[in-house]
Amino acid sequence: MNFQEITKAIQTKKNYLCVGLDTDITKLPSHLQNNPDGVINFNKAIIEATIDYCVSYKINTAFYEARGSKGWEELEETFRLIPNSHFKIADAKRADIGNTSEQYARAFFETLKADAVTVSPYMGLDCLEPFFAYDNKFTIVLALTSNPGSIDFEQGDFGGKKLYESVIYKTAEKADKYKAMFVVGATKAETLGDIRKIIPEHYILVPGVGSQGGSLSAVSQFGMTDNIGLLVNNSRQIIYASQGEDFAEAAAKQAKLHAQEMAMFVKK
Amino acid sequence: MNFQEITKAIQTKKNYLCVGLDTDITKLPSHLQNNPDGVINFNKAIIEATIDYCVSYKINTAFYEARGSKGWEELEETFRLIPNSHFKIADAKRADIGNTSEQYARAFFETLKADAVTVSPYMGLDCLEPFFAYDNKFTIVLALTSNPGSIDFEQGDFGGKKLYESVIYKTAEKADKYKAMFVVGATKAETLGDIRKIIPEHYILVPGVGSQGGSLSAVSQFGMTDNIGLLVNNSRQIIYASQGEDFAEAAAKQAKLHAQEMAMFVKK
Repeated sequence: MNFQEITKAIQTKKNYLCVGLDTDITKLPSHLQNNPDGVINFNKAIIEATIDYCVSYKINTAFYEARGSKGWEELEETFRLIPNSHFKIADAKRADIGNTSEQYARAFFETLKADAVTVSPYMGLDCLEPFFAYDNKFTIVLALTSNPGSIDFEQGDFGGKKLYESVIYKTAEKADKYKAMFVVGATKAETLGDIRKIIPEHYILVPGVGSQGGSLSAVSQFGMTDNIGLLVNNSRQIIYASQGEDFAEAAAKQAKLHAQEMAMFVKK
Repeated sequence: MNFQEITKAIQTKKNYLCVGLDTDITKLPSHLQNNPDGVINFNKAIIEATIDYCVSYKINTAFYEARGSKGWEELEETFRLIPNSHFKIADAKRADIGNTSEQYARAFFETLKADAVTVSPYMGLDCLEPFFAYDNKFTIVLALTSNPGSIDFEQGDFGGKKLYESVIYKTAEKADKYKAMFVVGATKAETLGDIRKIIPEHYILVPGVGSQGGSLSAVSQFGMTDNIGLLVNNSRQIIYASQGEDFAEAAAKQAKLHAQEMAMFVKK
């Protein structure tokens, strides 16, 4: 999916919800925990239940890698389960020197066929260039994250700016809105106004609504552009809405609540 | 392997070489390229050929992930091929918020049984704590890398220090030499003297000798401690020393040259 396609999907649906498939085997409903296909059955049911209420899915690679190569098979299968109508994010937070980043870009953009992958900017922009080299794919750069530890480095003073501001400035010089997006945590919604002065048109992926305490209202108020320009992720509050056999219905209900709230913000 | 064990191995062997298994299927000798077991046969031959000339292997996850779940099976098999006499590093450059880092720590320390994993500090120290929680395992934190782009952020002014210096200071406060190591690229050998003032005893993993142009002599001069305290990685110059059927012998020869040079530096 390219910029126009994701934008059209969001505007048509009046919805910018991304459902996070952080599927932790220990948190599955008990009837799926000892099922060898439990993860896939769970993801399939969650996708079917939420597909009308979101425009994107974010798959957190850690939860799959923890189970080794079987987990990677489930990661691949999960990507295949998501229809092309929805924007597929590999939440992988990779990046390395050029010849290695080329391999990561291949892993996520070609082998897994993700539309986007999250990356860490720490090592510098030359490590991100192999990702930017792909057309109609997005490189989602960590800027300001939702965890308390973001104060350690991201929010520190970096030559007169905050480090995360410098990351956004320098990345946006290399990668326009058709290539790059940025991660800004929902718990830092008050910064979105200033961030929008640096990147008025790039998409921002916002995790941290829900279990981490961020507010959808504040994120939408400070972060929305004329094109909306937001993807707001919720993982745990939706996928673990119930731990019973009704988990899919409960997830649908939660996703629908988010969708309804989003539609109100879009109408404004 | 814990701190005492890796230190004893290094001192006994007078060797601090880490061989990097960045196994790129397109660079295999032609007789292995179309063999479905080519990667494993290659890694097995390289490990057997170099085992006497090194103390550690570093497996770069990107090169395996690029081939999807089959690649992850090869990653697992490669970890199993390395005997416990050698220090096993998963070069993965991960890190994420706490509940996700827990999953990454499980993937590398438990499922793959690595002794160490490389991590990115960008998101802050709370993202590294799930790795530090493991005893007798090492978290290798990116500090100053060998690529030109390290100037973008790592080397920038961060509240009066360089960002990488701040990363080292803050990490070393949380994780002692038994838990943490740091990555400093060989192309930045001249900085190792000052870095040693901050961390006199932590191990430093040094990539960038060989294809990236760093000097083993300079790294050893500026970085070595009484306990040696270095792991110097070489990937491409060793594993791709020949692209013919003699690749393993050529790798052994290269590794032996490194080992001989290292033994001289240790004797000094």
